[in-house]
Amino acid sequence: MLLIVTPNPALDLTYTVPRLRAHTAHRVASAAARAGGKGVNVARVLAALGRPALAVLPLGGPTGAAVAADLTTAGLPHLAVPVAGETRRTVAVVDPADATLFNEPGPELTAAEWRSVLDAVEARLPAAGALVLSGSLPPGCPADAYADLVARAAAHGVPTVLDADGPALSAALAAGPTVVKPNAAELRAAAGTGDVRAAAAALRERGAGAVVASLGPDGLYAATAEGGWRCEPPARVTGNPTGAGDAAVAALAAGLQAGAAWPAMLPDAVALSAAAVLAPLAGDFDRAAYLRFRSAARARPIPAPRPAD
Amino acid sequence: MLLIVTPNPALDLTYTVPRLRAHTAHRVASAAARAGGKGVNVARVLAALGRPALAVLPLGGPTGAAVAADLTTAGLPHLAVPVAGETRRTVAVVDPADATLFNEPGPELTAAEWRSVLDAVEARLPAAGALVLSGSLPPGCPADAYADLVARAAAHGVPTVLDADGPALSAALAAGPTVVKPNAAELRAAAGTGDVRAAAAALRERGAGAVVASLGPDGLYAATAEGGWRCEPPARVTGNPTGAGDAAVAALAAGLQAGAAWPAMLPDAVALSAAAVLAPLAGDFDRAAYLRFRSAARARPIPAPRPAD
Repeated sequence: MLLIVTPNPALDLTYTVPRLRAHTAHRVASAAARAGGKGVNVARVLAALGRPALAVLPLGGPTGAAVAADLTTAGLPHLAVPVAGETRRTVAVVDPADATLFNEPGPELTAAEWRSVLDAVEARLPAAGALVLSGSLPPGCPADAYADLVARAAAHGVPTVLDADGPALSAALAAGPTVVKPNAAELRAAAGTGDVRAAAAALRERGAGAVVASLGPDGLYAATAEGGWRCEPPARVTGNPTGAGDAAVAALAAGLQAGAAWPAMLPDAVALSAAAVLAPLAGDFDRAAYLRFRSAARARPIPAPRPAD
Repeated sequence: MLLIVTPNPALDLTYTVPRLRAHTAHRVASAAARAGGKGVNVARVLAALGRPALAVLPLGGPTGAAVAADLTTAGLPHLAVPVAGETRRTVAVVDPADATLFNEPGPELTAAEWRSVLDAVEARLPAAGALVLSGSLPPGCPADAYADLVARAAAHGVPTVLDADGPALSAALAAGPTVVKPNAAELRAAAGTGDVRAAAAALRERGAGAVVASLGPDGLYAATAEGGWRCEPPARVTGNPTGAGDAAVAALAAGLQAGAAWPAMLPDAVALSAAAVLAPLAGDFDRAAYLRFRSAARARPIPAPRPAD
């Protein structure tokens, strides 16, 4: 079983409008609501792959109830930790040109509420094949929240995949997450250098077992104890990139659980990520494209950067 | 007791952002949620004036539950008619320049659900001093829904104030609403003429007892059986015009219930409307400004248009 923690889940609202015009009123032609947050997208992908997974997430208020109801409707096993604050919403206003996003900050968790999340995870770690930690930390959550979870997983011998940025990422490195999956901008910000290979090496020096950087249309770069790899998608894809990184995280978690080697895991992650771009909603992917991409993608060993790079 | 029907209520979300930039992601600095819809704003104003009022509204799903919870928190007496569809949201994204609005269409009501709303209103009409009908009709609601309610109120000798536009307004005129309160654009659209006095006269010919047109910063124009009036706010106000028309409706309903004459009712409506502009949230008003404006505002008789106008 894969265990997925989403500390700051959301009800994702998608509004379709003919054209977004600032400072005017819009009648929303179509409004869709579904459970969201990066970890929820990971859970959707794993469910579609037939991989047993449990999503652990704090939920509160009517918006939290709506998230729980949607998870149930979608058939996604979840463990909701009740919290007093109301779960946040995100609003994506989609017009033919692009999406405009509004992300609520989320409710502040009390120390006791966060401890309840930790306890829920701790209790399930003995049965977990991997632990996924995804997305932003809610207000009030300690900055070392992910570090704590990584250490608990390590104590049970459970590998971790961490997808976060900023202080949540930086504070977790010393605890030794098995894999961190920043995108290029997050990686550069965390390492303070513009070179992806040098930045990945820096994060490994600070404690990450492996760094898998998602490079958008250029695929993945992985810095690991077994060496460096590049893996590009076998075809250029256009569509909705939201959720593509979450699909890669799902593949990495499934690979870690199965004990797969990097040259097998990376093409799978690249293929799933590219297939997710082809699906209009985050958490979904184009199954036929995934299988096609997976058989065509290849991980290419590349040398680690020299210290002078 | 004043009876207020809001057929298509909403949970109004207000997002404050430093600057709205289309096709980018925004971290929402502050997110507020409260019960909304034009009738709910009317109910808030009446409650603040100490006028007993009951809001009747269909509510469904988690968003409907959030609306009901907020009405309870705000101390607004309400009768929620349960419906299967989920109550809509509106999102107002506010930056220093202005607000950008996204209005969900609302749930489709079944014929049985709409009949439940009618039954709830019918049962309370014998005790009502006036009936307020405010805002858009939800999808699936018959176009003559307001006409039906106006006729039922008339059968009980209860005066009606109707604030709607488009087909909902047009279809209700023949039933003889006591007062209709369009804004200038809605009035022109309903009458098919650009002249406010001629348009108001046309709506009276089609059945409205009186037409009170809200003209934004220019106040009100009233066409009534006792003649025409103009009433301007005694001071120019700047602020949030959302809810100003609802404040006018609240004043008109309270005036009808009290049997007030037009020269008393119109200054009250103009003063309350201008005081609402000074309050940041729809449904609120600046009490000191209201009292000041009310003592200074005067209704000025003006001649009805000649047929040649």
